Amino acid sequence: MTNYREEAGRLLCQIRSAKPVVHSITNYVVMNSTANVLLAMGAAPIMAHAKEEIDEIVRLAGSVVINIGTLSKDWIESMVQAAALCQEIEKPYVLDPVGAGATKLRSETAMRLIRKSRPSVIRGNASEILALSRAGGDTRGVDSVNTVDQAADAARELALMFDTVVAVTGPEDLVTDGRVSLTIKGGHALMGCVTGTGCAATAIVGAFIAQTDDFVEATAAALAYFGLAGEKAAFATKGPGTYWPKVIDALYNIKPEELAKEAKIERA
Amino acid sequence: MTNYREEAGRLLCQIRSAKPVVHSITNYVVMNSTANVLLAMGAAPIMAHAKEEIDEIVRLAGSVVINIGTLSKDWIESMVQAAALCQEIEKPYVLDPVGAGATKLRSETAMRLIRKSRPSVIRGNASEILALSRAGGDTRGVDSVNTVDQAADAARELALMFDTVVAVTGPEDLVTDGRVSLTIKGGHALMGCVTGTGCAATAIVGAFIAQTDDFVEATAAALAYFGLAGEKAAFATKGPGTYWPKVIDALYNIKPEELAKEAKIERA
Amino acid sequence: MTNYREEAGRLLCQIRSAKPVVHSITNYVVMNSTANVLLAMGAAPIMAHAKEEIDEIVRLAGSVVINIGTLSKDWIESMVQAAALCQEIEKPYVLDPVGAGATKLRSETAMRLIRKSRPSVIRGNASEILALSRAGGDTRGVDSVNTVDQAADAARELALMFDTVVAVTGPEDLVTDGRVSLTIKGGHALMGCVTGTGCAATAIVGAFIAQTDDFVEATAAALAYFGLAGEKAAFATKGPGTYWPKVIDALYNIKPEELAKEAKIERA
Repeated sequence: MTNYREEAGRLLCQIRSAKPVVHSITNYVVMNSTANVLLAMGAAPIMAHAKEEIDEIVRLAGSVVINIGTLSKDWIESMVQAAALCQEIEKPYVLDPVGAGATKLRSETAMRLIRKSRPSVIRGNASEILALSRAGGDTRGVDSVNTVDQAADAARELALMFDTVVAVTGPEDLVTDGRVSLTIKGGHALMGCVTGTGCAATAIVGAFIAQTDDFVEATAAALAYFGLAGEKAAFATKGPGTYWPKVIDALYNIKPEELAKEAKIERA
Repeated sequence: MTNYREEAGRLLCQIRSAKPVVHSITNYVVMNSTANVLLAMGAAPIMAHAKEEIDEIVRLAGSVVINIGTLSKDWIESMVQAAALCQEIEKPYVLDPVGAGATKLRSETAMRLIRKSRPSVIRGNASEILALSRAGGDTRGVDSVNTVDQAADAARELALMFDTVVAVTGPEDLVTDGRVSLTIKGGHALMGCVTGTGCAATAIVGAFIAQTDDFVEATAAALAYFGLAGEKAAFATKGPGTYWPKVIDALYNIKPEELAKEAKIERA
Repeated sequence: MTNYREEAGRLLCQIRSAKPVVHSITNYVVMNSTANVLLAMGAAPIMAHAKEEIDEIVRLAGSVVINIGTLSKDWIESMVQAAALCQEIEKPYVLDPVGAGATKLRSETAMRLIRKSRPSVIRGNASEILALSRAGGDTRGVDSVNTVDQAADAARELALMFDTVVAVTGPEDLVTDGRVSLTIKGGHALMGCVTGTGCAATAIVGAFIAQTDDFVEATAAALAYFGLAGEKAAFATKGPGTYWPKVIDALYNIKPEELAKEAKIERA
């Protein structure tokens, strides 16, 4: 049986030496924090959305992150174009369906991407995953109002339906391909008071799927790594403003052997 | 006579339990810091500007923030659309006329929004408010070169002219509907060395006007709360870089009863 | 012979009193951090990209920063328009060719700007400068994979070819107009783990070229100032997350007389 903890350490070690280029087409709110997260962990972020250069960037990248947090027509076209190329050349990509369920545009854009160009991984909160699986979630902003537990069945169905890996993050995370399901512990309540922590998790998943074809393992490793950073940063914390820079520091400082020992990944 | 201090505490308490969704159509520079300010205080930020989803988001939000800091044609159309719907369904909205007076585009966009769809509150610095009231201000970038005092008459005129509430922020803030005028003290000089502090003030006003119809009280409460956070964060401060995360911490940590005791709001 | 150190101090002193408006047309990722860098050092940042207001903003600014980090068609047009006006009215402008060499769009946009409207200064990493000079560099994301040394000849050629000043930044920086070449030391390895440090350097150059016609001196002064801030901030540092706010603090706290004593500028 896979030792997920050790695999997590091994993947982080690989990222540190390979420094994968992670191409993000993401929302305006989190571009800066996402880039900093990727740099701190040892990856090489690149942000680009012009349709004239999307193909070149997708090809040079190790993986692609598509995040629908601040959509507009041109950006949707770029996302569709990038996802299609990922599908064609088998470049791993992770989708963050921010606010799916909150508006038609978001739900439809997410489903359009999923249907046309299968993502390697979909990472959302419970509301978003429920919305996507049509299990009836209605999203309130980009916050999770449903629990990961409630979204577990929806996640498995969605994963099977589209032959992908689905991650539902919250106080405890779930990663599933519909057959194998893993739970990941870690993090800290303050993460909910910082913008873009979900988007950061997705970006970290992006860096991990650049290193292996086992996207369940990669996603669980990414979330365990982020969770561990969230825990370490919470020591002597005074609020979300000073907490976030400490999360970045922790992502930078966590050693592969530390993650191999402390990653909290279990079979669900 | 209203006890503005106690009212401020009561409103903060409401925000903490109601967690109002605040829809921001704001500038690229401050999106991240604005979202963090709203999360730290207990509100639920959502950023969206596509005309295809503006209406849905305005309807689900408790209030709307429109900030013209980095305009372009499409964004102006979205702002106009959002403001018009706010007017129609009586959703409170606050306008931040960033750089009004500096360019025709900014002055005209601000005036177009004000004329077509009355804002609940307009929050600007002295130059911007003077520019809007045509009292002759010329804005130098987004910094205030005029004092709040100089803008006081302009603020009252503007408020009466458009039946709205006007807030002029600076070392000391003024809030007026043209009849009642309040001054708010607090803050710290370092705030002027951090980008987006004015925009943050506007976003906080956004959260407060989601809780009451008395927009003068709500705006004064918001500015007193932000000012208190700015003061608390300044303790043992070393510069604007480490100061801002501490402001976010302070917004998170200030208790309603603390605000009810320490808010510095007075009749002008 | 010029005392570059003293000149650096003198220019910083001027910036602190003149508070030049620096107009940035830059990428989404770094807008916030760039604005904070400019505010911390005493300049007045303004971000604007709409073609309807570009001209007014360029005219009121002391200098212009054009950064091609997240391009799209409309933004390119605004950059071309701003650069052309800078050329016409002799407003200094600095170009940051982010990712030149990585995609055709970036290389072509940078060259189009350089050919049509000579920049006062071009600031890039070794890969970008090599790509621009067609010395054969291929850029890997926005990271430098070539050393400043390798790019030195390319920088001199590029400077002579277009009668401009070229700065290549890295562990050690080079500034050249093709005849005089200066090296600048300072900084810290952690800067490579924070997004937008190159862009920050460019913005700082923007503030300095607003103060003098000697763009070699101004650029060297800017980079020495940034390098000194990077060194000071590294004391007792724990990681890139908490390091960056300390860099901002250092930019705020460094006194002109300190820079005049500690700037590490030498003839190459």
